[in-house]
Amino acid sequence: MDKNYMLKAIEISKLGSGFVNPKPLVGAIIVKDSKVIGQGYLKNFDSLSAINMAINSATESLDNSTLYINIESDFKELLETNIKNVVVGTLDPIKNGQEIETLKTNGISVTLGILKEECEELNEIYIHYSKTNTPFVFTKWAMTLDGKLATKTYDSKWISSDDSLKFVHHLRQQVSAIMVGENTVKQDNPMLTTRLEGIKISNPLRVILSKYGDLPLDSNIFKIDKDKKTLILCSSKIQKSKEKEILKTGAKILKFEEKNGHLDFKDIITALGNNNIDSLYIEGGSAVLASAFESKIVNKVYAAVAPKIIGGKNAITPVSGNGIEKMRDAIVLNKVSHEIIGNDVIIKGYIS
Amino acid sequence: MDKNYMLKAIEISKLGSGFVNPKPLVGAIIVKDSKVIGQGYLKNFDSLSAINMAINSATESLDNSTLYINIESDFKELLETNIKNVVVGTLDPIKNGQEIETLKTNGISVTLGILKEECEELNEIYIHYSKTNTPFVFTKWAMTLDGKLATKTYDSKWISSDDSLKFVHHLRQQVSAIMVGENTVKQDNPMLTTRLEGIKISNPLRVILSKYGDLPLDSNIFKIDKDKKTLILCSSKIQKSKEKEILKTGAKILKFEEKNGHLDFKDIITALGNNNIDSLYIEGGSAVLASAFESKIVNKVYAAVAPKIIGGKNAITPVSGNGIEKMRDAIVLNKVSHEIIGNDVIIKGYIS
Repeated sequence: MDKNYMLKAIEISKLGSGFVNPKPLVGAIIVKDSKVIGQGYLKNFDSLSAINMAINSATESLDNSTLYINIESDFKELLETNIKNVVVGTLDPIKNGQEIETLKTNGISVTLGILKEECEELNEIYIHYSKTNTPFVFTKWAMTLDGKLATKTYDSKWISSDDSLKFVHHLRQQVSAIMVGENTVKQDNPMLTTRLEGIKISNPLRVILSKYGDLPLDSNIFKIDKDKKTLILCSSKIQKSKEKEILKTGAKILKFEEKNGHLDFKDIITALGNNNIDSLYIEGGSAVLASAFESKIVNKVYAAVAPKIIGGKNAITPVSGNGIEKMRDAIVLNKVSHEIIGNDVIIKGYIS
Repeated sequence: MDKNYMLKAIEISKLGSGFVNPKPLVGAIIVKDSKVIGQGYLKNFDSLSAINMAINSATESLDNSTLYINIESDFKELLETNIKNVVVGTLDPIKNGQEIETLKTNGISVTLGILKEECEELNEIYIHYSKTNTPFVFTKWAMTLDGKLATKTYDSKWISSDDSLKFVHHLRQQVSAIMVGENTVKQDNPMLTTRLEGIKISNPLRVILSKYGDLPLDSNIFKIDKDKKTLILCSSKIQKSKEKEILKTGAKILKFEEKNGHLDFKDIITALGNNNIDSLYIEGGSAVLASAFESKIVNKVYAAVAPKIIGGKNAITPVSGNGIEKMRDAIVLNKVSHEIIGNDVIIKGYIS
């Protein structure tokens, strides 16, 4: 039964997805006599805690009840109640067990590690960011069965099925920032916003890699308001006039020293991390993805494969760049899993 | 229960895989009082029929028994027994129901169409060849998660896991012929033989597309004996001296008139069909696969995707050639299914 209540805590925590960064997703369930009598979650960065919401929502007295929570939290509100049992999914790397100790010192019985792996995956962004102060980096692409991101004329609409496109928007909802390269802006003119029905939307910061700011100013990414922000990453050698033009759109600029003529991905994630960006989703194109993999900054990969064949020696593949020479040097994903969405398959894995 | 016995018939028929072409795979199960009392399958092209083997193997009298068979067959041996019930999976397109009529005329009760779809897939090679007199064409490739068949230096050993390599050998076992292009012979020097443990091996005819016979004569495909045969497909303009060299290895040659400077795939499958080749498995490389798709002769596609990333603008993708310009012109597979083998996923579909 412990597992089922923890699953409920995980489920409810996801309601905060896209709004709590860089805090963790937190869900709390209060159980008494095998009945859920209260529940709460962290709604957004500034809101009341999940524990507080769960306590406030309780429909019965808290005597002899147990609290289930996916991650170690600040338990001070719980200490003022009669809850004497707490089940915790995983430790918070910053609190590092201290809050668990406080509970025990106060005579509360604690069970730690229920659905640990699931709880860790749920907050993989938070856990990574807490440990490294750099964003957790996702990549995702959709390709044909013959390994193409787009035809030779850069047409890519639509490789994926509708359901698998929805998956992209769920990813966007989870992250603080989404990145594409200058070429993707020019070719696809994407909005890079989250489009999902039936839930409150959180748009990630749009981050564009554009060495010298060579971007059409009427691009969709320059449609900026308080929910749709844009950050251009460019070289310190960008022309002053270009910089001014861009700033006029309302976009922000972050400048980097070039290294071997390139913007360095390690510098970029350090800078983004220092700006509270706990998660970065790199959508493409293939040259940006190649530099990201070469810089070894990618943590998690999603690839959707659609059962279509387009051919073309000059068609676009997901990861370009120089590439390796020998298969033995391939990046091998671990903790691989598969999800079948309609006729597409989404393959997911981690890079350690 | 009918379905379970038919599944058994399908299962046992597969023991003939690789040996019966261009006849169909046939399995026969005799059931009495809910007990299997006899079974048989078509062992090879010249052997006794599945029905004959099943009757001979019967451990009890055939009174009140039922025969399950995956495909309409010549039932004359059955008419000499007391079997009065026959369950048939699917029609044979050549016999076209005539044998079923004969059974009925002889007072035998017939149930048709049990597991029809499975029985049709089992004999998709035979059914296609019976209708068209051209081989059923498979393609199969293994690619990385970033859509590459090989690195930029043509290294492809090994993209797939061991288990998914085994899958290739099961495919080879099923077909009459396996094809690669001249470049694959030069780069990989493959044996193109079937390597499987624990079963009797049938090596497909090795068919090499090589316009002017420009092939190293010490290649593995020229190691020829009675179980390992090779056919070179070339232009009628091949040099006499080249032709002689090749014939000296024991390989056969089939010559075609060039069309727009190329060997035409429609001509090729017509010629192979006329030579009793009911099935052709095109393994690569990417240029051969591209012409096969452009010629619209491919019936079934398998693609294995391995969770590895290698990158490279100049790496090799599964299907090269000109390719299409617009996504809406993509070849879309139908009857798509997925098989997870270890960390690889094999995606299978048909082209109609």
